Amino acid sequence: MSEYYAAIEAGGTKFNCALMNSNREIIELTRIATTTPQETISQVLAFYRPLQALYKIKSLGLASFGPMDLNANSGNYGGIAKTPKPSWSYTPLSQKLNAELGLPVFFDTDVNGAILAEYLWGKAQNSKVAVYVTIGTGVGGGIIVNGHILNGLHHPEMGHMLLPTKEDNNGHCPFHGNCLEGLAAGPSIQKTWQEKAENLADDHPAWQQQVDHIAAFCHNLIVTLGPEKIILGGGVLQKPGLLEKIAPQCEEKLNQYLTLPQTLDEIIVAPSLGDKSGLYGALALAMGHGSHQINC
Amino acid sequence: MSEYYAAIEAGGTKFNCALMNSNREIIELTRIATTTPQETISQVLAFYRPLQALYKIKSLGLASFGPMDLNANSGNYGGIAKTPKPSWSYTPLSQKLNAELGLPVFFDTDVNGAILAEYLWGKAQNSKVAVYVTIGTGVGGGIIVNGHILNGLHHPEMGHMLLPTKEDNNGHCPFHGNCLEGLAAGPSIQKTWQEKAENLADDHPAWQQQVDHIAAFCHNLIVTLGPEKIILGGGVLQKPGLLEKIAPQCEEKLNQYLTLPQTLDEIIVAPSLGDKSGLYGALALAMGHGSHQINC
Repeated sequence: MSEYYAAIEAGGTKFNCALMNSNREIIELTRIATTTPQETISQVLAFYRPLQALYKIKSLGLASFGPMDLNANSGNYGGIAKTPKPSWSYTPLSQKLNAELGLPVFFDTDVNGAILAEYLWGKAQNSKVAVYVTIGTGVGGGIIVNGHILNGLHHPEMGHMLLPTKEDNNGHCPFHGNCLEGLAAGPSIQKTWQEKAENLADDHPAWQQQVDHIAAFCHNLIVTLGPEKIILGGGVLQKPGLLEKIAPQCEEKLNQYLTLPQTLDEIIVAPSLGDKSGLYGALALAMGHGSHQINC
Repeated sequence: MSEYYAAIEAGGTKFNCALMNSNREIIELTRIATTTPQETISQVLAFYRPLQALYKIKSLGLASFGPMDLNANSGNYGGIAKTPKPSWSYTPLSQKLNAELGLPVFFDTDVNGAILAEYLWGKAQNSKVAVYVTIGTGVGGGIIVNGHILNGLHHPEMGHMLLPTKEDNNGHCPFHGNCLEGLAAGPSIQKTWQEKAENLADDHPAWQQQVDHIAAFCHNLIVTLGPEKIILGGGVLQKPGLLEKIAPQCEEKLNQYLTLPQTLDEIIVAPSLGDKSGLYGALALAMGHGSHQINC
């Protein structure tokens, strides 16, 4: 008999809410626009409550936009932390879902969920160390080590890694200038070139800079962590031909310093779970593969 | 009754060889100059063989200069990998000690040993994630995650993290130019300023650059891994006042992006085991706290 799980991919623009079984089949699915916390959460509850009458739902997995409060000693454990996103700072998201639905809630960031799903069912299977990175309107990343999501004092914010750049201080991160997010996220490309990324021609110099910055970032992950996989997703990576150029550029930066048992284009790869990585991540959390939970 | 362990800190200039007990007491100690592999290893054997007649030695822990071959599928597992150090490339160091002394050999890099020792007995106790970095003639680093030394496809080579720098391409790493090692290791300082680090006056601009580069490196470790501790050791850090300037500079770079439960000067600290960190690391490995071993 299948077991049923509530899986929520909570994003900045929409919440994907699903009822799934342990075979990763989606039984029910709805998309809810991310508006105010109150409105959004009440719609989430309105979706799941009737389903609880029909299915014995075992638990809820929440893979959420960050920053999340993952400090078990904090009063806001499982909630959204301070965020520039209007009205969402300190929203007790997991806590509210737990209290209202009476389900154990297993939670983590969306990218931590994604790397967990890639480890269980995707390209990071059997990896001792693997990284998932999404480069879109922002940059997020998750790391898995020996089957466990890495969380130290906070969840990884590797998009804010400072990087060398040939141009003088052209990054647009309001905090760090030349971090990966400030150099390579969608809005940064637009600010640098005064044009949306999707409108830039294939031979526009912006793309070579993208390759260079993302390759430097991958280089730094490789020398620091030695990951078997760096899985690169997100809107910016949808640019045809971009991903393929990163491994050779990274190889040039490594400059034969390391002798690796696999090639860089085997390490730096696209996600295998596509647009399902968020929901699969939420499901993986719901099934107990993560490390953060609130029980009833 | 005490148990006895052989603990070897194998460095590029000397091998510290000890007989220790599980209370971390040094029973016997010798220093052997690192010359050719054959000569060095035969002196190591000559030290331990008489001790084996007097003590029941349980195992040998080897914390070695890198690069080490830590790939269990490799024919050289436990040996030195390709290295610029004359005549040491592909030396089967652990294998030889195992075969000649008939002891199980537990091995890892010196910095992986050091972070393990700091985790067991030093400043990284109870840390979910902690990093040990030594900045001297080169830069080495080890990471511990949930009590286990992190090793992915290779041991960390985080000294080769590429960093932004205000000066144009002034790094001296033959592989990467502007990596931490190329910017901040002892020989790099000397090449940049045409003067040995220890001869540079306290107000020499070299020191502010050192602070800036090491702070950028710490910033990147923090955003990527969220370590509770970054333990900074090595000859370059012996410069009085240098370490204390790194946390404030790192704080400036983080620019209040993260809300951390502890201050940066609680995170970025000096080693607590001093010049014993290498031997303690070897002992920790010998006691079975590492993950690499060759049994008889």
